Amino acid sequence: MKGYCILGKGKTGWRNDLPKPVPKPNDCIIKPTAVCPCTSDIHIVDTLPPTYSHIIGAVLGHEGIGIVTDVGSEVKSLKAGDRVAGLSMFMDFRSMDSQAGLAQYNPDDSYPDRLAKFGGTFAESVYVYEADSNLALIPDNVTDKQAVMVTDMMSTPFTQAELANIQYGDTVVVIGVGPVGLMAICAARLKGAGRVIAVGSRKSCFDRALIYGATDLVNYKNADIVEQILTLTSGRKPDSVLVCGGGSEMIGKALKIVKFGGTVSNVALFWGEDNTIFPNIDWGFGCVEQKTITGTQVKGGRYWTEKMLNLISYGCVDPSHLCSHEYYGFDKIEEAYFKMSDKADPELIKPVVYINDL
Amino acid sequence: MKGYCILGKGKTGWRNDLPKPVPKPNDCIIKPTAVCPCTSDIHIVDTLPPTYSHIIGAVLGHEGIGIVTDVGSEVKSLKAGDRVAGLSMFMDFRSMDSQAGLAQYNPDDSYPDRLAKFGGTFAESVYVYEADSNLALIPDNVTDKQAVMVTDMMSTPFTQAELANIQYGDTVVVIGVGPVGLMAICAARLKGAGRVIAVGSRKSCFDRALIYGATDLVNYKNADIVEQILTLTSGRKPDSVLVCGGGSEMIGKALKIVKFGGTVSNVALFWGEDNTIFPNIDWGFGCVEQKTITGTQVKGGRYWTEKMLNLISYGCVDPSHLCSHEYYGFDKIEEAYFKMSDKADPELIKPVVYINDL
Amino acid sequence: MKGYCILGKGKTGWRNDLPKPVPKPNDCIIKPTAVCPCTSDIHIVDTLPPTYSHIIGAVLGHEGIGIVTDVGSEVKSLKAGDRVAGLSMFMDFRSMDSQAGLAQYNPDDSYPDRLAKFGGTFAESVYVYEADSNLALIPDNVTDKQAVMVTDMMSTPFTQAELANIQYGDTVVVIGVGPVGLMAICAARLKGAGRVIAVGSRKSCFDRALIYGATDLVNYKNADIVEQILTLTSGRKPDSVLVCGGGSEMIGKALKIVKFGGTVSNVALFWGEDNTIFPNIDWGFGCVEQKTITGTQVKGGRYWTEKMLNLISYGCVDPSHLCSHEYYGFDKIEEAYFKMSDKADPELIKPVVYINDL
Amino acid sequence: MKGYCILGKGKTGWRNDLPKPVPKPNDCIIKPTAVCPCTSDIHIVDTLPPTYSHIIGAVLGHEGIGIVTDVGSEVKSLKAGDRVAGLSMFMDFRSMDSQAGLAQYNPDDSYPDRLAKFGGTFAESVYVYEADSNLALIPDNVTDKQAVMVTDMMSTPFTQAELANIQYGDTVVVIGVGPVGLMAICAARLKGAGRVIAVGSRKSCFDRALIYGATDLVNYKNADIVEQILTLTSGRKPDSVLVCGGGSEMIGKALKIVKFGGTVSNVALFWGEDNTIFPNIDWGFGCVEQKTITGTQVKGGRYWTEKMLNLISYGCVDPSHLCSHEYYGFDKIEEAYFKMSDKADPELIKPVVYINDL
Repeated sequence: MKGYCILGKGKTGWRNDLPKPVPKPNDCIIKPTAVCPCTSDIHIVDTLPPTYSHIIGAVLGHEGIGIVTDVGSEVKSLKAGDRVAGLSMFMDFRSMDSQAGLAQYNPDDSYPDRLAKFGGTFAESVYVYEADSNLALIPDNVTDKQAVMVTDMMSTPFTQAELANIQYGDTVVVIGVGPVGLMAICAARLKGAGRVIAVGSRKSCFDRALIYGATDLVNYKNADIVEQILTLTSGRKPDSVLVCGGGSEMIGKALKIVKFGGTVSNVALFWGEDNTIFPNIDWGFGCVEQKTITGTQVKGGRYWTEKMLNLISYGCVDPSHLCSHEYYGFDKIEEAYFKMSDKADPELIKPVVYINDL
Repeated sequence: MKGYCILGKGKTGWRNDLPKPVPKPNDCIIKPTAVCPCTSDIHIVDTLPPTYSHIIGAVLGHEGIGIVTDVGSEVKSLKAGDRVAGLSMFMDFRSMDSQAGLAQYNPDDSYPDRLAKFGGTFAESVYVYEADSNLALIPDNVTDKQAVMVTDMMSTPFTQAELANIQYGDTVVVIGVGPVGLMAICAARLKGAGRVIAVGSRKSCFDRALIYGATDLVNYKNADIVEQILTLTSGRKPDSVLVCGGGSEMIGKALKIVKFGGTVSNVALFWGEDNTIFPNIDWGFGCVEQKTITGTQVKGGRYWTEKMLNLISYGCVDPSHLCSHEYYGFDKIEEAYFKMSDKADPELIKPVVYINDL
Repeated sequence: MKGYCILGKGKTGWRNDLPKPVPKPNDCIIKPTAVCPCTSDIHIVDTLPPTYSHIIGAVLGHEGIGIVTDVGSEVKSLKAGDRVAGLSMFMDFRSMDSQAGLAQYNPDDSYPDRLAKFGGTFAESVYVYEADSNLALIPDNVTDKQAVMVTDMMSTPFTQAELANIQYGDTVVVIGVGPVGLMAICAARLKGAGRVIAVGSRKSCFDRALIYGATDLVNYKNADIVEQILTLTSGRKPDSVLVCGGGSEMIGKALKIVKFGGTVSNVALFWGEDNTIFPNIDWGFGCVEQKTITGTQVKGGRYWTEKMLNLISYGCVDPSHLCSHEYYGFDKIEEAYFKMSDKADPELIKPVVYINDL
Repeated sequence: MKGYCILGKGKTGWRNDLPKPVPKPNDCIIKPTAVCPCTSDIHIVDTLPPTYSHIIGAVLGHEGIGIVTDVGSEVKSLKAGDRVAGLSMFMDFRSMDSQAGLAQYNPDDSYPDRLAKFGGTFAESVYVYEADSNLALIPDNVTDKQAVMVTDMMSTPFTQAELANIQYGDTVVVIGVGPVGLMAICAARLKGAGRVIAVGSRKSCFDRALIYGATDLVNYKNADIVEQILTLTSGRKPDSVLVCGGGSEMIGKALKIVKFGGTVSNVALFWGEDNTIFPNIDWGFGCVEQKTITGTQVKGGRYWTEKMLNLISYGCVDPSHLCSHEYYGFDKIEEAYFKMSDKADPELIKPVVYINDL
């Protein structure tokens, strides 16, 4: 079997020698029909920390949808031919953390562990662990272009927004308007936000931010964002800040922006910096202003994924505007990967590869 | 001063002998610019329980917006000429219940007590108690037709939806599609509901339900609503039910519809029936299915009212579609009141009286 | 294998012809060391509804602790000889409802379905489904007498109290002071309740209510409990009510007792009555007073059960006072069952059978 | 009137020339019967930032109880002779933030603003703003020694614990076992914590930590606290951490200690350090481990204060063990202040001054 793999630090390529997977009793095999490269794939390849060395040789990719081809003997809710989302998210609903409501975390069997064991979505056949718990059927009126965005681009900021305590009519700031930030604008609106101030710089992103419900655009290249935002609001501090990009210094800026009692919710990964540092004065000296900082990984699993698909199916969100580049054919995964990794194209939001030739 | 008053059980009329109000230090006087009669005004007049006898002679009306004319000496945030919402909601933010987060309730100084003391909105001058806490400035881009819906028609179902534990992608049933139910559809959508099933019968309501985001319409005249709804969902029970109309038997139907762990949230007033009665089997025999029943009055106050106005100002909700009949002139309050009270007009949703002649 | 079984409506007895169970890959077999009969066992036997007919012949019992004897091939966290709680609670953490946080419910595979399939705890060997997810190790300093109370007598009211929104210093009423009500007193205290008013009648229960932290005792045989309670509180309504006994008319009484904005949380099973009926005036006519009614089944699973055991191990709760009668030997299960079922003994709280002879 | 005042940076002393206060309509005057100096009084005096210059000359002190002497004309719930807690906490329940549930914050009328305007508790007569909203009657069975701890020493960590998402049976770490940390141990227990690990060093504190429910003691002078704690728990990370002392570097340590999905809740004031700095790896690189950091000021107001007093009155907490030094007589305030400020006494927890001579 063929797959697009991590071959070492900063190095990717095709392998043709991968064994065709066979499902264990609770598991399934999927033929992918659409996949996306993600900046976190690239991040892992480019930085490859020593604790991740066991993933060298593994198939990359955690975004994708497909058709069920093989079904484990104990799988109850799925059959060959089903069109499904939820590939390669590897939630373990039998873990202790899951019983505490946090299936996305399993310190004993982490994302790299599972990627090494099962492989990602950039293969001719994709292995799905605990299929009944992880795969959701895609409604007929949801397109491939929409559905492929569900498990990460949409689910990540929707998880983030759930932690931000957004109330009806709130003013919410979204820092970063890449694909995750764009969906964060939607997520804030669908929790009841009134005003949504989006921070970015590229025209291609700003155009989409307006489609997704941003009411104000702030270009961080023009002036300090704190100053720009508080000018827009006449000094009244926003209720919450969703950090979807920028380095860890954004936490300090977000604390400075957010109101007494407000929440900063982060999904950016601070891997390149040793420390997060912020001025105590912006945090109410630690206790005066009840400002909360949180951050999260994406939620997944069948229940959550069905809910996300419902939002698309019933017309609440259309993530297809995230797609800036479209590729056709399994072998185009490499081209899409490099489009994502070199980041040179100002029009780049998210490339999608449709796999119509397997 | 002239005002439209309750004169006895089932009896309303104009009074011309009302004293012109003078504000106490924390209070304000407002000249109304738009008011609406509400079914609860009519309900109070028609049923007038003995405990409400002190309101005989009082000015009716609790929905309205206007312009500040007189400002108490201790009022800080308002001045003559300000265009405001939040009249006659009588929230007391100094009560003990308010410290527990429930300003809408004050058993020691209830709605009829305050109506008797201060009078309602159907007068040439409206008295507003604790103005800094209760009045919100109306943004310039919010019309009178929109703003007059804020304090009750919009705030009631938005309060209700907050109690219904709505999550992203949920299926929500809204029973009743009068003005409150129509806004409940919006409120559910803006907490993240995916599918919204609206139950009603009139075409004028159903047309608006679709505008406000209903995905399915169920006519209760066609067949049992439980059966119709579970057919639509292929037997999968909805996540929550918002009861906005019908008698108390709707609680039992809602319990039968709602899923394990789901919530029934009610804003209908069950004044005509002695008891609420529902089958134990539909409630999981009291404990098996973790079904929750709750009900609430409308929230108010300046903070909340500003948030509601934000939702209009930033394009999340447009309550102006609720307005089915428009009247011009202070004296038309009576005509609007009778339009509302006789309920004969199949096009009736909500009448608005614009007061341009004071 | 021998076991104490349901043999028909109102009929129980020993069977000696049960097959010795063999664990599937994720499951375990346990030798019980202590078990308790529960009123719900007796309730099922005495009422046996038609939908439960498949449990005729099944081993009874869902309370028990024991020693692991056989371990399925995929079980990771357990080995033969481990002393464990969590038998026969049958939580399915792979169900969709579990992903929504409600593992205690599985409409497709309910308690009677599982009892029919796996059998209960009154057998020489007890089958445990999904052992890694369901069994918790019992800390050394927790006695058998304490541990056997964990899965139902303690977990049920602790689940109930979680739903009652108890805040520091609240006044909480507990209706019913059988074993579940007694632990509800503890559960309320450990969520921060100040005053805890316990309603019952028997001296043996009241003595224990004081041990567990009740501050006031109300005997329902003396006068109407609503009147007695509001006299104690000088008319100030309690913050929440935990209903642990009585019929469905207790819901109405609890609504009358509870404050504006308060919660009634129920764990009593209303199986003998067709309807729950309560006066609308006590519920604020459905919406005026924001009173919430909820009810729940017991939570379980390894994570939760470990937390309950922690409370015992660290000295927060000592459920051993619930034990009013002790029996020694497997064959004494029948005697304990009849002690529980005839309810004649005024000293009866909860019988425990220690199984030291298997 | 005489009072103990801030006279400049690092300078305190008596003033005899203070005007005797006269209550405005909603306010009261109190004769103090017991007061405590607080480290935050000393902190303000010793650091006096330029923005606090308007408090020079003001009466110090925010902890105290007393007897009502003068009652404003609009005050409804109080009369001369009432024994009350809640002096000098200055909550404004009419502010907009209060309507959002955060009465402790008023950026437009902050703690120093109010101290400058009304003065603190170290005076012969204490002014209380909005008395109906702020003063709570002290139950007869609560002693002065207990009651004087309520508004800050007890309320601060109880507010903190409310933000820490403590669940039944959780393991909670309390860093710092001065008076606030000691009450944090109680607060954690009364939200259902099982194991409570207290971090400190002094014997006088550790003795009290055990009285208040600590199950494990960690001396930070012996070794790194992270290592010590994870050794105690066999590597299983605690569910939450309450930071009640130490500098801002404790946030990083707390993040390292706390589990996936856990909360760090802080009440220490980081005034001496410019920045809070923590390693990204301990925060899951910002997003991997859903770790939440929050901090808060003390809640107050009559409703909250009554709840705290209930906890004492009904035997849930006895804060009198916090009192390490007792003084008798108004003039002893200065001696108590210096006892607190020089911190030399290893037995020092909290000094109380009983004022029996006014």
